[in-house]
Amino acid sequence: MTITITAFHRSPDGGRGLARDTRVRWALEEVGQPYEVRGVTFAALKEPAHLALNPFGQIPTYEEGGLVLFESGAIVLHIAERHTGLLPEESDARARAIAWMFAAVNSVEPPILELETAKFADGDKPWGADRMPLVRERVRTRLKQFAAHLGERPWLDGDFSAGDLMMVSVLLRVKSSGLLNDFPNLTAYVARAEARPAYKRAYDAQHAFNTR
Amino acid sequence: MTITITAFHRSPDGGRGLARDTRVRWALEEVGQPYEVRGVTFAALKEPAHLALNPFGQIPTYEEGGLVLFESGAIVLHIAERHTGLLPEESDARARAIAWMFAAVNSVEPPILELETAKFADGDKPWGADRMPLVRERVRTRLKQFAAHLGERPWLDGDFSAGDLMMVSVLLRVKSSGLLNDFPNLTAYVARAEARPAYKRAYDAQHAFNTR
Repeated sequence: MTITITAFHRSPDGGRGLARDTRVRWALEEVGQPYEVRGVTFAALKEPAHLALNPFGQIPTYEEGGLVLFESGAIVLHIAERHTGLLPEESDARARAIAWMFAAVNSVEPPILELETAKFADGDKPWGADRMPLVRERVRTRLKQFAAHLGERPWLDGDFSAGDLMMVSVLLRVKSSGLLNDFPNLTAYVARAEARPAYKRAYDAQHAFNTR
Repeated sequence: MTITITAFHRSPDGGRGLARDTRVRWALEEVGQPYEVRGVTFAALKEPAHLALNPFGQIPTYEEGGLVLFESGAIVLHIAERHTGLLPEESDARARAIAWMFAAVNSVEPPILELETAKFADGDKPWGADRMPLVRERVRTRLKQFAAHLGERPWLDGDFSAGDLMMVSVLLRVKSSGLLNDFPNLTAYVARAEARPAYKRAYDAQHAFNTR
């Protein structure tokens, strides 16, 4: 069955790979599954046809036969559960990898989302500049905790997993802020992931799509 | 094997059920699994013994034999996968229920977390009051989208699932803000969940724990 995902018709990042379709492309590349991409304009995100796929009007969505999914974490988990290469076989290790997926989206991404919101939605407000150090500090707290845990491990828990894929995808969103620079083991971790052939193929595919 | 979860030694909400251990207690009650609770003081959350269970110094954690998990979403999913009652049998329906779990923690909870942060961390800042309507509006946007999707369904997708459990747990966090009141179908959805015997048992257990 053909897998079809949605992506921004033109990503706001101009193809830097930070939109959430990159996570799903990456997972599909890791497990060797071909897929098709349908671009959605900002206006179309809020129209009934897209809201039927994702009630929150976001990308990516995932269609495969009669199955429709949304939420990058859920899509990556679905792919990881149905193909080998992204989750350990052993039951406890598998549960731990899934825990890292949730940690990425529920403990690390929220302060990063807040930082992005602070730039784009509060940036022109009177408090924009004064508030920014507090928002950055909340991100830094999470990075520090994560860096302390990761230490010199190459990946979170044995081989590369969907947990690493989600965590790196979230960390890539703060790469341009400079906040990762205080944590050499995190920059090395992210670079190690970016060097994976599957990541490169996913990055190149989204870049080509966004600059077509 | 005994299941042991951690909870705040005293929850900041005084036992209103909003700390994330309630989600895990609720899931365990839905599937009929007994569990033990270990209280952790705020100081102990940042100590090595707890950081070994959860690198971000949060509750809840979950221990069962040699398995240690953290992240409420991951723990609820682990429980739902190993016992009947929280996930549909059919594969596509199961994937959709998991998508709702991710939607709860990655699309709905982040603006709610931001609202809580705005109250407790920015509340005494010069911009506290001026910024609040913007933060509330971001929550309202998500609630509106979710209410439009839910419509008059009793639960998100057929029977009550771990997706509903996580979504209701997130919505309960804004109940006191008044933001739910504009959406009668959401208040009814939350009330329907609160009326479940398993939720009541979980609520009562955390309340007794926090007022002991």
